[in-house]
Amino acid sequence: MKSILEIQTIEVHKLPSGESLNVKAYIFDSGLEGPTTYIQSSVHGAELQGNIVIYEMMKHIKNHDFKGKITFVPLANPFATNNRLGGHTQGRFNPITGHNWNRNYTDLMGLKEDQKNFSMKNFVTKFIDSPWEEIKKEYKIAIEKMIQSFENKMTYERGPQHNKFLNLKLQSMASDADFVLDLHTGPIATRYIYSAEYERDRVKDLSFPFNLSIPNKFAGAMDEACFMPWVELSKSFKSQGREIPIEFESYTVELGSEELINTQQGVIDSSRLLHFLYLRGQLVDDVRYSPPSGQYLSLLDDYKTYYSSDGGLFEYHLAPGDTFKKGDILGEYLLLQHIDEDFNEDKVRPKLVAVKDGIVINHCTTCSIGLGNELYQVMENYQELT
Amino acid sequence: MKSILEIQTIEVHKLPSGESLNVKAYIFDSGLEGPTTYIQSSVHGAELQGNIVIYEMMKHIKNHDFKGKITFVPLANPFATNNRLGGHTQGRFNPITGHNWNRNYTDLMGLKEDQKNFSMKNFVTKFIDSPWEEIKKEYKIAIEKMIQSFENKMTYERGPQHNKFLNLKLQSMASDADFVLDLHTGPIATRYIYSAEYERDRVKDLSFPFNLSIPNKFAGAMDEACFMPWVELSKSFKSQGREIPIEFESYTVELGSEELINTQQGVIDSSRLLHFLYLRGQLVDDVRYSPPSGQYLSLLDDYKTYYSSDGGLFEYHLAPGDTFKKGDILGEYLLLQHIDEDFNEDKVRPKLVAVKDGIVINHCTTCSIGLGNELYQVMENYQELT
Amino acid sequence: MKSILEIQTIEVHKLPSGESLNVKAYIFDSGLEGPTTYIQSSVHGAELQGNIVIYEMMKHIKNHDFKGKITFVPLANPFATNNRLGGHTQGRFNPITGHNWNRNYTDLMGLKEDQKNFSMKNFVTKFIDSPWEEIKKEYKIAIEKMIQSFENKMTYERGPQHNKFLNLKLQSMASDADFVLDLHTGPIATRYIYSAEYERDRVKDLSFPFNLSIPNKFAGAMDEACFMPWVELSKSFKSQGREIPIEFESYTVELGSEELINTQQGVIDSSRLLHFLYLRGQLVDDVRYSPPSGQYLSLLDDYKTYYSSDGGLFEYHLAPGDTFKKGDILGEYLLLQHIDEDFNEDKVRPKLVAVKDGIVINHCTTCSIGLGNELYQVMENYQELT
Amino acid sequence: MKSILEIQTIEVHKLPSGESLNVKAYIFDSGLEGPTTYIQSSVHGAELQGNIVIYEMMKHIKNHDFKGKITFVPLANPFATNNRLGGHTQGRFNPITGHNWNRNYTDLMGLKEDQKNFSMKNFVTKFIDSPWEEIKKEYKIAIEKMIQSFENKMTYERGPQHNKFLNLKLQSMASDADFVLDLHTGPIATRYIYSAEYERDRVKDLSFPFNLSIPNKFAGAMDEACFMPWVELSKSFKSQGREIPIEFESYTVELGSEELINTQQGVIDSSRLLHFLYLRGQLVDDVRYSPPSGQYLSLLDDYKTYYSSDGGLFEYHLAPGDTFKKGDILGEYLLLQHIDEDFNEDKVRPKLVAVKDGIVINHCTTCSIGLGNELYQVMENYQELT
Repeated sequence: MKSILEIQTIEVHKLPSGESLNVKAYIFDSGLEGPTTYIQSSVHGAELQGNIVIYEMMKHIKNHDFKGKITFVPLANPFATNNRLGGHTQGRFNPITGHNWNRNYTDLMGLKEDQKNFSMKNFVTKFIDSPWEEIKKEYKIAIEKMIQSFENKMTYERGPQHNKFLNLKLQSMASDADFVLDLHTGPIATRYIYSAEYERDRVKDLSFPFNLSIPNKFAGAMDEACFMPWVELSKSFKSQGREIPIEFESYTVELGSEELINTQQGVIDSSRLLHFLYLRGQLVDDVRYSPPSGQYLSLLDDYKTYYSSDGGLFEYHLAPGDTFKKGDILGEYLLLQHIDEDFNEDKVRPKLVAVKDGIVINHCTTCSIGLGNELYQVMENYQELT
Repeated sequence: MKSILEIQTIEVHKLPSGESLNVKAYIFDSGLEGPTTYIQSSVHGAELQGNIVIYEMMKHIKNHDFKGKITFVPLANPFATNNRLGGHTQGRFNPITGHNWNRNYTDLMGLKEDQKNFSMKNFVTKFIDSPWEEIKKEYKIAIEKMIQSFENKMTYERGPQHNKFLNLKLQSMASDADFVLDLHTGPIATRYIYSAEYERDRVKDLSFPFNLSIPNKFAGAMDEACFMPWVELSKSFKSQGREIPIEFESYTVELGSEELINTQQGVIDSSRLLHFLYLRGQLVDDVRYSPPSGQYLSLLDDYKTYYSSDGGLFEYHLAPGDTFKKGDILGEYLLLQHIDEDFNEDKVRPKLVAVKDGIVINHCTTCSIGLGNELYQVMENYQELT
Repeated sequence: MKSILEIQTIEVHKLPSGESLNVKAYIFDSGLEGPTTYIQSSVHGAELQGNIVIYEMMKHIKNHDFKGKITFVPLANPFATNNRLGGHTQGRFNPITGHNWNRNYTDLMGLKEDQKNFSMKNFVTKFIDSPWEEIKKEYKIAIEKMIQSFENKMTYERGPQHNKFLNLKLQSMASDADFVLDLHTGPIATRYIYSAEYERDRVKDLSFPFNLSIPNKFAGAMDEACFMPWVELSKSFKSQGREIPIEFESYTVELGSEELINTQQGVIDSSRLLHFLYLRGQLVDDVRYSPPSGQYLSLLDDYKTYYSSDGGLFEYHLAPGDTFKKGDILGEYLLLQHIDEDFNEDKVRPKLVAVKDGIVINHCTTCSIGLGNELYQVMENYQELT
Repeated sequence: MKSILEIQTIEVHKLPSGESLNVKAYIFDSGLEGPTTYIQSSVHGAELQGNIVIYEMMKHIKNHDFKGKITFVPLANPFATNNRLGGHTQGRFNPITGHNWNRNYTDLMGLKEDQKNFSMKNFVTKFIDSPWEEIKKEYKIAIEKMIQSFENKMTYERGPQHNKFLNLKLQSMASDADFVLDLHTGPIATRYIYSAEYERDRVKDLSFPFNLSIPNKFAGAMDEACFMPWVELSKSFKSQGREIPIEFESYTVELGSEELINTQQGVIDSSRLLHFLYLRGQLVDDVRYSPPSGQYLSLLDDYKTYYSSDGGLFEYHLAPGDTFKKGDILGEYLLLQHIDEDFNEDKVRPKLVAVKDGIVINHCTTCSIGLGNELYQVMENYQELT
């Protein structure tokens, strides 16, 4: 039994030069009943590791038995991938508008009925007594139609909007998925996951050491855009007296630091994600994977940023993944402007002190910082996942 | 009777090099009872005309009788002013984070009571029977304290945030104002005003030809940050059975195209704003000002954008201020990629056709455009202000 | 007799996303004896007008009799064309390296013999007694081979260099040309031509009002890269006692301001270039063209820049094409930092005074300037072309 | 005997906002006879380590006996230091013009006599029989006057030029030095030195592992701008029959990777430079320094770049400082665009193979690369310094 790989090319942008930018979807369809998974990477252009993780996953899938369908979309945002300035990829926000590439997905649930050509009320009424598998199947079709309907409206009236157009294309490719993984990285970062509140007991299956729990709400990101329709479906059925599960899962997966690819680490990363697919019944056999020494979770409200309180140079003393205690020294400024004849080191090299216990999730990519620039992002009030 | 000019220097940023960036507030205090006005410009770094308008206004104020106090803050965002790339100022968003400089003001009304150290309920209870003038005076003090309290919290826990820090400093300087004018420009643009719904009958006093009416809600901008406390105060008193007026007014004033200063046009612009101050009882004598030939208003929902539906060159046929009818040709693409041996002009030079009647408010700064880039912004369903 | 249009697609870049950027060459070959002309535009990405000029020229050529061959390459640098930041195209230099896109052409004459696989000495010896037409034909072939040889060396040893690779591709397409026109624009600019010293008596045939005469030397630009081989050939034959003409001509043609396309002006521009082709025997019939009211020329040494002597705003009083006298006021600064209680206008609004008579060729695209930024570029010591 | 520290503030730029950017010179003057040394850092804005090295050196100097005078100028280019885009400092070239900040120093020897108000011929004639110490003293004064004279001309005719103005200011501060150290870093780099041909036997005193020998010529950089006057003086005296030494030394010192400061490594770096000052008779006592395990030198012609031959991702297998042999694999591309149903790894992951033996000096800061981007810079044909 061999999988069939289909490669689709989807146009996502047209450049001023008249040329197109396309993404490629690598679709592995087993031809068997089973879950549908969608995995994309590099929506932020400098976040590269997901591409090699996808490559390693595809190599595995190619040679092992699986069920259902898996779609991989590496380099999902070629416009951002290609936006290099000086030595670095400038891939976090649209350089023309400043819009973050992961904040313009469409909240299908927030659209008006005539924008998406869909009424939740009618849908629930129609399927109130149907079997869950039928509801699920019909709802996936409905999601795809909502997206198509909105895209048509947006595009054919006064034209598409850049970020929204790309985001919607990706959302559309994921519309029939049961599981969505959006592969990102931080700046200088450890490995961590964003999961929804309702996924609290499932996120540990991804075997990542650090986990941030976000509310079941829409704030513009891919994972939210994908889980919100299922959260709302569940609510709507409940309001009509029927309990249905939220089987759908989507996660934002943060794979270390940006601008890097590393095969050795990529093999570890991919094994964790393949193990997750095994747990979800997609892979027939488990893989040798690398479990973390511990797994910790914080609420998004406890994900805090230390901002620079001066302008100058800053030396990071902690690395991503390090834990620290309140009162620990997180780093030292080098403020040459404060040198005077006394060489008072305290004025030139003030310290950044932790205000609370925490774990470093990431820090800034440069030691040169202005007032109010991000220095560290940390998890506080974390608890162990068991 | 002569005015007294005080010049204050306020630090708004510290650069990695260790140097500070400051704004200067030029405060004209008549020493007489009268309104307090706050006028700033260039929060978006490429939007220059407001600076010369402020300069012309100050020259007038210097030599004429007025009441109350007027604070001018030109070049209110030196970080953005100084951010030049190639031939142009890159001043719309923070180049580090992508955050729009006019979207990170603080919604004082949305803060929790302990963040701002203020309870609206207590305030209303305390002053429920006080004369309006006393309420107004006490509330201005309260606003300033809320800002100070929040700034202290933000800064001294894990440091200030870049945009938020600057925006809060400006908000603070405007905290005792009765009238706030935030001077901006569009890209290639006409002259127009953003006013709140509740200011619908007052905006014509600014003598601008085009006007956009925004909801009485907070969306991150300076004008909203300044009027929301007064909108909420009014609501809170009303819920306690007392009607108080919203005397406070704030406007975003759009002064044509970016990257330009022009003295001749600046004299016209400043005369309109001075005339407004006369109507509000601040200037003792009226000025010769230039009334527009007509004044038109649309709701924000009727302020629409045409986005590019292809990548290539685009020739604008209409100028800001031009009116057009549904079906009119707004411009022509030049899509060289579609040239073939036939030279079919229709494929190479497709037209952009208006989908509805409207007025051009602004268009993009370049004829080189990718899919989904803004082409025109237009007012539709406009009505004459009378 | 109808021309045949062939469209060639040449890959000039591969993006990190894996996609290619290509230029298209539109080759009109009459099948008749006659000159070979090469015309390109938009090597600097923000310089757009040349593209519409090429389009208008192609429309004419398509429908009129001509001799020889004409190759058009609009949008000759898609990488730069597509490099937009904020509201503007950032197209003057490679955003990764800072290298000006018009400064990395290859000086074939400066290459070592083994790099280009060519010996001028041998060539001259071989053809010392050949008819000029044969020499010309053979030398064009030799130029193309030199380029090919150098490109192979460069590429297959340690890889191609970005700017150099693109520039060489373009140079190669022009290798068999008798006439090369490189269409550019200035920032805010008038229409002018860069011509070589040896073309002094021919440049007026282009009907442009302003003309800068550059030395017969290589400084990295396309026009120089193209004429240097012919200048050197002439010298080498002369040193062997034979006079041969430099029939070859190349010009950098500056078509007004950047970021703009304008059909009406494009028709005028193209008519001048078509008239030039008529004068050179390529077009069979002349066209109605628009002669300038006068034609002026300066040496490159007399092409001077006024730099800003302070940081602040600057109001341009003169437009491109304007003439001025020593002592004239070219513009006024607006230096708000110098405001004090006295409102001394002289300190706030100092004037920029001409140090010598001249003509404004272009000025900067923004009124916001730092110390040492370009304000105006002017022609001095100009003379009328007759 | 205690040193006296004087801190000078020198304005090097005025921003559009009207504020100044300044550099600070920390001048340690022993009051004793001895050499004059000038050390600057961060002329390229992202190159930070030199600042902490200077700080460590100053701490040492402050507390130890020395002779002569040492001037430190950290953060020597605040404009570039402050130019951050996204996560990184964009400090290699002027973002307005593309000009590399280390390529616009002034070639005093190339200026015309009336530009610098100096005649080498007259100087040599005048001092042909003077003692060397007198010549040296007088020539330092002459250098400073040349710079002053040129700056006046440049500034007061049509204004200063941005890069040239800064570069000249720095050059001026170094005009009386015997030793000049210009502290830089590479992108991801090892520690190495650029030294002039004539310094071949002296460079080992800096204790750096890798060394590039550049010609005794001017190519725009600080080290060259500083040594050229002394090279030319020596030539000029020689042409008049007198041999004088070139005692002057200047070096470009590359301190690892950009965007980083590290105290521990900074202590090692500073100890090497302090040891150099001891060897040159400036420090009275030697310091504990860290000698390299070996020292290698290549000619600049043997400093080669590997450019990317495709667009995609690239995984670096070697680190700065690594040696390799011809045929070794330097890294692997990840070219997802070449995936097809066969998963032919050779097409997706082609290798970069060394064409010659070498040592990796630095590699690019990102794994995301377009055609013709730099991958590695390597030393070839290196020899051990003994």
